[in-house]
Amino acid sequence: MREAYHAELASISAALVRIANLTGSAMGRATSALLDADLQLAESVIAAHGQVDDLHRDLEQLAIEVLARQQPVATDLRVVVTSLRMSADLERCGVLAQHVAQVARRRYPGHAVPQDLRRTVLEMGQLAQRLMAQAAEVIVTHDVEAALQLEKDDDRMDELHRMVFQHLLDERWQHGVETAVDVTLTGRYYERFADHAVSVARRVVYLTTGEHPAGPPGTPPAG
Amino acid sequence: MREAYHAELASISAALVRIANLTGSAMGRATSALLDADLQLAESVIAAHGQVDDLHRDLEQLAIEVLARQQPVATDLRVVVTSLRMSADLERCGVLAQHVAQVARRRYPGHAVPQDLRRTVLEMGQLAQRLMAQAAEVIVTHDVEAALQLEKDDDRMDELHRMVFQHLLDERWQHGVETAVDVTLTGRYYERFADHAVSVARRVVYLTTGEHPAGPPGTPPAG
Repeated sequence: MREAYHAELASISAALVRIANLTGSAMGRATSALLDADLQLAESVIAAHGQVDDLHRDLEQLAIEVLARQQPVATDLRVVVTSLRMSADLERCGVLAQHVAQVARRRYPGHAVPQDLRRTVLEMGQLAQRLMAQAAEVIVTHDVEAALQLEKDDDRMDELHRMVFQHLLDERWQHGVETAVDVTLTGRYYERFADHAVSVARRVVYLTTGEHPAGPPGTPPAG
Repeated sequence: MREAYHAELASISAALVRIANLTGSAMGRATSALLDADLQLAESVIAAHGQVDDLHRDLEQLAIEVLARQQPVATDLRVVVTSLRMSADLERCGVLAQHVAQVARRRYPGHAVPQDLRRTVLEMGQLAQRLMAQAAEVIVTHDVEAALQLEKDDDRMDELHRMVFQHLLDERWQHGVETAVDVTLTGRYYERFADHAVSVARRVVYLTTGEHPAGPPGTPPAG
């Protein structure tokens, strides 16, 4: 019985990691689609989202079955409940990657991101993907220090997000309102994606130490 | 024992309703602050968020205690797990109301919403508040028909959101990029707020019927 239980917990954790990996990769491809105005790639990110959705549903079903069958208490209960929350975070990240791809698709064959913001958006996309990879690692290792590091790394995302807004609000902005709208939304998608990755890491800290790390997971720079 | 248990479930539900009411009211006041450029009101919405946050934490603590102590199965288990998810939805709505107030504060003494969009934004704010009031009602009544109606009422929010984007992308837009950014973000805050209210209602449908209602809770019109 205990053994079966631990096998189930392990498979919940493995599913979380798998979803985190798929989601990080989706955001990476969505960023390429956005920067290269690559319609086919954008479509493939949007289409692949269904698969991640199915994984989520399976995972949540499994977690609820474990609660019902194993009746965990104390730490074990915390593990299962926290997994459900991580799953919700990751689900949202998947939707955000899809949104980035949708911006690319909507502006095709045009580019949603002007040349002078390409480098910043590229860095946001790469950082988002890296934060998610770190979050996946932390789910496996339960390494509190790495989890707290992730939160520090997210500061760079907030900085990049601020840079995007500074650029948008610069009087010399010459890309018109449609591009301003796209850039505003896209910037927010990356920032929210990173917040959810941080949130996953914070939940691991809570699981491991029993305490919520201080401070909320990022506040929007211009929202 | 059963009686104590049902009293605990009732207090979880009462806490959800209380938070939904506070959150709806926060969005109403944030909208007034935004439309009237009322700094004091904006500050009060931002400051009041801490109280809602405390209520959330208490509620989640209670739900986890109920899981540990009462070891619910089947429907009872579903009720507690679903309450945790509704709590997360409502928490997010509180943050979104705060974001609207922050836009008002940032632009003070200026107006973030130009005259020609006032009526649309007012309707978005009122609809958001109404959807949340409906969601609170549905939490109490478990009325599936009312829950599904909420989803239909949210269609109007999507329509308003589309109208905002049409206006932004109209060549005759003359309010500059800063206002375009504010309006883009604010429109998204209202739309996400409504999505979460719909999500609460959908969870009630799941609780009551055991089935997930068809279709995702709204897709962004221009995201």
